[in-house]
Amino acid sequence: MIDELKRFMIGSPIETARQTHERLSKKIALAVFSSDALSSVAYASEEILHILVLGGLAALSLSLPVATGIALLLIVVSFSYRQTIKAYPHGGGSYIVAKDNLGVLPSLTAGAGLLVGYVLTVAVSLSAGASAIVSALPQLDPYRVPMALLFVLLLTIANLRGLRESGLIFSVPTYAFIATIFSLLIIGMYRYLTSTIVPVTSVEHLEPLRSASSDIGFLLVMQAFAAGCTALTGIEAISDGVPAFKKPEWLNARTTLTVMAGLLTVMFLGITFLAQQYLALPAESGNPETVLSQIGRGVFGGRGLPYSILQAATATILILAANTAYADFPRLLSFLARDRYMPRQFATLGDRLVYSNGIIVLAVASSVLIVIFNATVTALIPLYAGGVFISFTIAQTGMVRRWQRLREQGWQRGMLINGIGALTTFIVAIIVISQKFFLGAWILLIIIPAIIAMFLAIHQHYVTAAKQLSLEGLEPPPPLRNTVIVPVATLHRGVINALKYAEAMAPGNVTAVHIAMDEEQTAKVRAKWAKWGGDTPLVVLDSPYRSLVRPLIRYLDEVDRRWDNDVITVVLPEFVPARWWHNLLHNQTALLLKGALLFRKNRVVVSVPYRLEE
Amino acid sequence: MIDELKRFMIGSPIETARQTHERLSKKIALAVFSSDALSSVAYASEEILHILVLGGLAALSLSLPVATGIALLLIVVSFSYRQTIKAYPHGGGSYIVAKDNLGVLPSLTAGAGLLVGYVLTVAVSLSAGASAIVSALPQLDPYRVPMALLFVLLLTIANLRGLRESGLIFSVPTYAFIATIFSLLIIGMYRYLTSTIVPVTSVEHLEPLRSASSDIGFLLVMQAFAAGCTALTGIEAISDGVPAFKKPEWLNARTTLTVMAGLLTVMFLGITFLAQQYLALPAESGNPETVLSQIGRGVFGGRGLPYSILQAATATILILAANTAYADFPRLLSFLARDRYMPRQFATLGDRLVYSNGIIVLAVASSVLIVIFNATVTALIPLYAGGVFISFTIAQTGMVRRWQRLREQGWQRGMLINGIGALTTFIVAIIVISQKFFLGAWILLIIIPAIIAMFLAIHQHYVTAAKQLSLEGLEPPPPLRNTVIVPVATLHRGVINALKYAEAMAPGNVTAVHIAMDEEQTAKVRAKWAKWGGDTPLVVLDSPYRSLVRPLIRYLDEVDRRWDNDVITVVLPEFVPARWWHNLLHNQTALLLKGALLFRKNRVVVSVPYRLEE
Repeated sequence: MIDELKRFMIGSPIETARQTHERLSKKIALAVFSSDALSSVAYASEEILHILVLGGLAALSLSLPVATGIALLLIVVSFSYRQTIKAYPHGGGSYIVAKDNLGVLPSLTAGAGLLVGYVLTVAVSLSAGASAIVSALPQLDPYRVPMALLFVLLLTIANLRGLRESGLIFSVPTYAFIATIFSLLIIGMYRYLTSTIVPVTSVEHLEPLRSASSDIGFLLVMQAFAAGCTALTGIEAISDGVPAFKKPEWLNARTTLTVMAGLLTVMFLGITFLAQQYLALPAESGNPETVLSQIGRGVFGGRGLPYSILQAATATILILAANTAYADFPRLLSFLARDRYMPRQFATLGDRLVYSNGIIVLAVASSVLIVIFNATVTALIPLYAGGVFISFTIAQTGMVRRWQRLREQGWQRGMLINGIGALTTFIVAIIVISQKFFLGAWILLIIIPAIIAMFLAIHQHYVTAAKQLSLEGLEPPPPLRNTVIVPVATLHRGVINALKYAEAMAPGNVTAVHIAMDEEQTAKVRAKWAKWGGDTPLVVLDSPYRSLVRPLIRYLDEVDRRWDNDVITVVLPEFVPARWWHNLLHNQTALLLKGALLFRKNRVVVSVPYRLEE
Repeated sequence: MIDELKRFMIGSPIETARQTHERLSKKIALAVFSSDALSSVAYASEEILHILVLGGLAALSLSLPVATGIALLLIVVSFSYRQTIKAYPHGGGSYIVAKDNLGVLPSLTAGAGLLVGYVLTVAVSLSAGASAIVSALPQLDPYRVPMALLFVLLLTIANLRGLRESGLIFSVPTYAFIATIFSLLIIGMYRYLTSTIVPVTSVEHLEPLRSASSDIGFLLVMQAFAAGCTALTGIEAISDGVPAFKKPEWLNARTTLTVMAGLLTVMFLGITFLAQQYLALPAESGNPETVLSQIGRGVFGGRGLPYSILQAATATILILAANTAYADFPRLLSFLARDRYMPRQFATLGDRLVYSNGIIVLAVASSVLIVIFNATVTALIPLYAGGVFISFTIAQTGMVRRWQRLREQGWQRGMLINGIGALTTFIVAIIVISQKFFLGAWILLIIIPAIIAMFLAIHQHYVTAAKQLSLEGLEPPPPLRNTVIVPVATLHRGVINALKYAEAMAPGNVTAVHIAMDEEQTAKVRAKWAKWGGDTPLVVLDSPYRSLVRPLIRYLDEVDRRWDNDVITVVLPEFVPARWWHNLLHNQTALLLKGALLFRKNRVVVSVPYRLEE
């Protein structure tokens, strides 16, 4: 029944032979790989305003300079990744680049940072998606968390089914989003130039901000910068996916990255500019409308069809962005599992050619974050940006090391570009973590070392286990002597069945044991044994404490002392009842015995099933 | 480690030989068996006032007439139980009397009613105990539920340890409670006669009641009566425990019952009378003080030492009352389990000579009720009184049937007494359930049939299982043919170990099976097999869907078809790692295989443990 449910939800298994890689044209690749990066414009400008609004109305005018700084950072990082793409045509995620160039610990740090980042991609994108919907339909505000969790569920089922990175599914929403945002920007610019912009925030709401002491310090600007850096999340996706491009892969991937970075820069700066012109204030409790929604209302003149399309496209691309983590997180876990830093089962492709275990871990972890942080983007950003910039830094440092090591043609230029990238992202990582430390970034300083410690402990165990299991130096072992014990409480068909099995497995070496708890019962067993026991001896043990388990274990130890190099097997009848709840009515003693023998050396427990037909 | 914790909490096992029954003198028996009944005076009067207060101040004067009606009922029921005690000197609980005289369905109904009643004894008594404490220490009001749950925990541990019905533990608090209540009544009567009673409720509080429309109808009186009937709960305890008395058991038990009923009547009427004189109003949210506490303050002149003793004695006897359910509930479950209406494990005496499983079920069930009903006595009463009166009725009807059947000396007189008892308790059961129907008594009409259905389903299964397992007509089975399969993913010491075991159990009848997932891996296995495989053949199976399980199961089915009357055994190596979390890193495939083979006929799975030392 469970199996049938699984088949219904997930579908039938897929043959290994059908695992092919669709090669993507640049246009489709842009759609597939850029949803994560482009979708961040839905919340990045707003995060800047969230900080600046603390400095009063005058501070809001700093949003454009801050955004420009972030755009410059974006260009630096894009140039760095252009180098990575060329150097790693088979895919250059931070983990792989670091493993290749920097050694174990940096690669594990990058891996831990990425894992955290992917979980947060899901949590942030789906929370922002819920916000986009709530902005359009404010009556849904109380259902923000359930909505985000519903998206997690849908993405999980889709990915367990094996939603391939199919071009069409991604192309339509991504290009729809790009087209909608550009329409918004063009009409908005037209309104700006014709001076027909009407602020969306009423004077009463602005008044308290106007009178607020405009204490605009360096700290405020730094914090706004740190908050806005979330615009860069997802930019590394193309460098992970180079092999999916049509030939020449690296060249096509590079061009796509440049186009994506260009689109992202224009959209991010444009939205920030319009937010300022429309005096859009960041969402807060009480007014859950996002900045993008406010601009949309302003530019499109109310909540008409164009506005609705904007919100729908925003929500959709945010869900797609979460979906990219569903591809990347399980794949990274499978790399880690293959390198023995994670349990082996994360490297096993499931029925539907997907890493099912990784998908489930991602779903659980992101759901937990959504619930804890109440589906609030602002609360999640410190963790998100921090994790992402840590792995950016490591990846770029790895590239620097690579240029230095291989000294290929043009290595000085490459090293310079990646050096600037590494330095910049390092500084930004420091800024993000320090500025957002008490807002949640401190969690990273606990969780990333904890994940690394877990990686190392798992690795250590697999290495020592492999050593212990190695056949190296093993002498061919002598044949085993197997002594078989059949506990007999009463005599019934299940016991006879178990007895026959025991006699087949160790002819002449079977002893039946009865634990005497009740004289009448013991006499009955003795009488029946005379008829059914055959040549097998019956030993009766006393149990002054009414325990079945202890006298039996003591007896097994006694038998064990008789010979060396022997194994003692306990054969138990086990009922296989016709209905699940019948299990509660049987096999309790068998369970107890198994539990007691589990950790004893040279003890094997065999359950011989006996089916009850009704 | 778990075992050590258990030993610390519960203590070491006790020998069966130490299971003796202390014979109780009348004085001690009164203490042991009456705590449940006597403690109900702590809340019964208050429950009456709870209803009457709805009719305004004038209605409160009806409390004494209502209580007198209940006292008459108490006398009728006591006389009925005096008959039961004589007829069942070995203990005449409702379940046993009904089984003896009325057949299966009535006895199961009584059993279900009693089970519900015992759970409610715990929930009500401990909630009332918490109320007694909160009355003395109002600052503890927010901790009512945690306090009640703490009492459940303490009683559970004490009873798992095997708290015997030891005389001293019961005598001191029970007689202290009786003495305190009688002091209260005597001083209270003295104040009444000397007209020195000062009402405890201020005029402002009484004013709204005075002006309330005094709509005193028949319904209100009936409801007050139904509520006060909770005073009778626990009165059947002595008839259950006749064998614990000194000889002549039935005579001593009868005398004790009469004394107990007398004490209960006087205490209940006295408290109700004083409540009226002191104008004590029932506890409600905002004023959590119990009626008994208010009377105590009034009689003893404030919250001094005598008042504190009253509250402490009340809380203690209520906890003892809950404890009686801890003896009765598991014992009833053991009767039901012996008669095969409950899973067998409820009839197993644990290490400490107690029915541990029953104790745990009682603790869980009563905790759930305490949490759901927020430790509020008034909310729990409808369920409690309803369940108790259902089993009273069945027990008395059983006695009527018995007189009629056996026609012993004086049967007409006995039948008359029990007939009146049966009729009265039946009418009261109807009153309680109808008057409290929407307040919770409807739950009984769902839960009691559900419990009965469960009893019958369990019984039905045990009967058919016994038939299927009977050796009657079984031909001595021929020897089994055992074909052994050892799945081999890679070759390591654990596999060699399993292989040796397999060869010992079915020499010359073992096949190793490798599922090919990766060509390189398969080649390695083949090469190593040449060295280590000995004479055992290696079969390599393809797996187009990367599944380990499906090709293996298909192969087993194929092998199965070769011979009749054979068993196929799958021998798996199973790692026993040094640390618990290492389990997450191993044995995943073994688990999967076991799960898949669990429900297949003629398949035995043997796990051969291989210990990892670090």
